[in-house]
Amino acid sequence: MSDLLSRTIKNIKPLDQESMASARARQDTLTKPLGSLGRLEDLSVQLAGIQGKPLPLIQKKAIIVMAADHGVVARGTSAYPQDVTPQMVLNFLHGGAGINVISRHIGARVIIVDMGVAGHLDPRPGLLSRRVANGTRDMSQGPAASLEEAARALETGIEIVVSEIKKGLDIVGAGDMGIGNTTASSAICAVMTGKTPAEVTGRGTGLDDQQLKHKIEIINQALAVNKPDPAKPLEVLAKVGGFEIGGLAGVMLGAASNHIPVVIDGFISGAAALIAVGLCPQVKDYLIAAHVSVEPGHKFLLHHLGLKPLLDLNLRLGEGTGAALGISLAEASALILSEMATFAEAGVSEKEDK
Amino acid sequence: MSDLLSRTIKNIKPLDQESMASARARQDTLTKPLGSLGRLEDLSVQLAGIQGKPLPLIQKKAIIVMAADHGVVARGTSAYPQDVTPQMVLNFLHGGAGINVISRHIGARVIIVDMGVAGHLDPRPGLLSRRVANGTRDMSQGPAASLEEAARALETGIEIVVSEIKKGLDIVGAGDMGIGNTTASSAICAVMTGKTPAEVTGRGTGLDDQQLKHKIEIINQALAVNKPDPAKPLEVLAKVGGFEIGGLAGVMLGAASNHIPVVIDGFISGAAALIAVGLCPQVKDYLIAAHVSVEPGHKFLLHHLGLKPLLDLNLRLGEGTGAALGISLAEASALILSEMATFAEAGVSEKEDK
Repeated sequence: MSDLLSRTIKNIKPLDQESMASARARQDTLTKPLGSLGRLEDLSVQLAGIQGKPLPLIQKKAIIVMAADHGVVARGTSAYPQDVTPQMVLNFLHGGAGINVISRHIGARVIIVDMGVAGHLDPRPGLLSRRVANGTRDMSQGPAASLEEAARALETGIEIVVSEIKKGLDIVGAGDMGIGNTTASSAICAVMTGKTPAEVTGRGTGLDDQQLKHKIEIINQALAVNKPDPAKPLEVLAKVGGFEIGGLAGVMLGAASNHIPVVIDGFISGAAALIAVGLCPQVKDYLIAAHVSVEPGHKFLLHHLGLKPLLDLNLRLGEGTGAALGISLAEASALILSEMATFAEAGVSEKEDK
Repeated sequence: MSDLLSRTIKNIKPLDQESMASARARQDTLTKPLGSLGRLEDLSVQLAGIQGKPLPLIQKKAIIVMAADHGVVARGTSAYPQDVTPQMVLNFLHGGAGINVISRHIGARVIIVDMGVAGHLDPRPGLLSRRVANGTRDMSQGPAASLEEAARALETGIEIVVSEIKKGLDIVGAGDMGIGNTTASSAICAVMTGKTPAEVTGRGTGLDDQQLKHKIEIINQALAVNKPDPAKPLEVLAKVGGFEIGGLAGVMLGAASNHIPVVIDGFISGAAALIAVGLCPQVKDYLIAAHVSVEPGHKFLLHHLGLKPLLDLNLRLGEGTGAALGISLAEASALILSEMATFAEAGVSEKEDK
């Protein structure tokens, strides 16, 4: 394991219990029936523990969207052509994609990273070019990437989030773009959760029944050829993963090691979370699951990670769109903790003991 | 039925099918897999139909919080003393309550209305004093209010939302405050959905098992004494309702008659929706259910109304807090429809026909 990676993992500490106890105690003094803001209260306590502050602050928000391509699409596992990956990157840069709209709505900046888009993508203002390779190789024929490439994807994610933290960051959302990446994520999900490809694989951007069956066959083939070992997450990432998935796992590790909460989005950033938590189980406490996707594997991986999604809106776009909505809820929860009056401050009578 | 009420109901029209078709068609050209923004897409189409605009606009947002008291609390159906109603009204006016915090977060104004708080509540800047009476009477002994009082509550709600529309309003959330109002709402819910009080009644602000049993007995008694007829919603409101509940039902009618979407909050504004939809079934299409509350009756009433909640966060505060979060999602859905680039605009390839 590289120096940066092992150093980052070593820096990931348990949540700050004192800040959490203080946040919980304050919630119980605010002018509302005990526990009546439900999961928003729990979320504020988690944020306190992550940031190590009794009153967590969610002001500087970012979505990191990582794009890469997948060699396995040569086998016809996606409804869209591979050209869509770079085309969507340009759409992100021009502000016209779903993630741009929702990020403006919640006041988050969007960081666009080329982690390994296939073909030609010129350097452009606003695009971080951190290409590990020209897309992965076809995982149904052998490893999608080398161990070195997988490690580089993780390190790149760490470096990018650390650089964003230097600019000011209170919370980060993990977004993805990559034609074919539900295929890789399904493979990771099957390996890490112990479910079969048939159980975890879905229609991605819109496959029909026949195409879905074919996608499952290809994933079975990739697992048979590569035999990824769930106890070796870096190997899983290399054999059946992708560069955007590795990059997002790195973002999670880098954020957790710096006490920054990470809101995961859908199935792809969930697969990245499986890798990150596989490498360092402590990361889990730093993750907030924004929503449960339509992709069938997503609920299995959330269960495996012990995360409960905040939203269930039948989303399956990716890009970090669900994560952005989740960040807005996290911000609301932190504001409630900081800004609501206590019973004493407001002169409101407390519950009657009968 | 009064002139204002019948005129308002007559003005509630079906949603604009042409705007809805246009919104749906545009959703299908935006740079995302077909239907991949799930319920946010449906929400944008509903908003288009309500506002009668292919591109609905959600900029001017308000939460109307109506407060009133309930005579039935004399029977010990609430965990908090009745004093809390005026105390919380002052908390709203000072900006320290949950609804103030979340409304600031989403950029909505908060309108606080005294619909009939018991006891002394001086006129103050920012407080709309529209008192129907000094709280309701004890519904376990006879009607909580007269038919005239119930009608006045409805008309007041209509007048208030119409006056807010004149100031500029694109969407409105319905919030409540009133010690004892889950008791009234449980009674309304039982009558209108045909469920028993035992099925729909919950712990409100925090009753224990024994207190919950007692609350159910009191509601059974109120229904036995008053025999409210579900076919006569105004009578139901008078016999077992409350002034804030009537006011919020009026807000829903007034908003719908002016093509303004209404986001309902939890169990109390849900009970108001049962009255509003009872008076005019067409209102239903103008309602958006923000969340499903912990109160057990809430899921029955949402099912009865045919509404699917956007959020499930174990909230049970009321005040419009859930509605405010729902408004933010509605705004996101409208922004997506307006601001996302189309495939043609962005030069992104569409799905491959195989």
